[in-house]
Amino acid sequence: MINPFDDTYFMRKALQEAEAALEKGEIPVGAVIVVEDRIIARAHNLTELLNDVTAHAEMQAITAAANFLGGKYLKNCTLYVTLEPCQMCAGALYWSQISKIVYGATDAHRGCGVMKTTLHPKTEIVGGVLAKEAAAIMKRFFVEKRNLN
Amino acid sequence: MINPFDDTYFMRKALQEAEAALEKGEIPVGAVIVVEDRIIARAHNLTELLNDVTAHAEMQAITAAANFLGGKYLKNCTLYVTLEPCQMCAGALYWSQISKIVYGATDAHRGCGVMKTTLHPKTEIVGGVLAKEAAAIMKRFFVEKRNLN
Repeated sequence: MINPFDDTYFMRKALQEAEAALEKGEIPVGAVIVVEDRIIARAHNLTELLNDVTAHAEMQAITAAANFLGGKYLKNCTLYVTLEPCQMCAGALYWSQISKIVYGATDAHRGCGVMKTTLHPKTEIVGGVLAKEAAAIMKRFFVEKRNLN
Repeated sequence: MINPFDDTYFMRKALQEAEAALEKGEIPVGAVIVVEDRIIARAHNLTELLNDVTAHAEMQAITAAANFLGGKYLKNCTLYVTLEPCQMCAGALYWSQISKIVYGATDAHRGCGVMKTTLHPKTEIVGGVLAKEAAAIMKRFFVEKRNLN
């Protein structure tokens, strides 16, 4: 039997969040957190609207998921995020002991890979899911921004 | 003329925040953010109370300071924090482009130094201010916790 709830399915939900960020003029990054095929948190980048560098999609999703679960450790949870997490977000994910991170596009400059941020030993990380779509929405943001100037 | 507003003065304010965390059963870390000898944000660790790994003293202080300033970059700001920032907090401080970080005790296991977190080129970092006092309050927390078990 085919399971419709694969990584692509949930990454599309994260991409919808990125679209919501784009509409608000935010750098378009979206995230969802999933437990047993159920989305328990959705968030998108709000750093401009909130005037707060800590308001990345992942940070808000971690807070929302912990609130839903009633505990701060994200055991058996998977984060889907359209862009590779930065040092801050990877550092928060370290503390959360999340089971899995699935990201779309690689961030070659500020991603946790190139920055060598340490993840928790319990955390598996996979990149490149719908990477083209995730990169395309980022490109749209920067092209639109340039055209405004 | 002696300036009473030196690093020791503001670190004592951060230690008062750490005391407030201790009273709530939180890992006792406190922080203040200062602009031109004026405290614009005070915070202490609330990870247990809020069930949220992102609720470190520094993260809350960054959000509060940006809110006070009306902008997300912490230019000309100094963060005083009783314990060396972790990857997450150092990553947030990277995005904030804060001018200076002054910490008390070194965190030999989870500190941004040993974890090799990248700070912003605009950020200066100094450690060891009232380190003994900052380490002593951490020790009190762990001794009290052990005695409860």
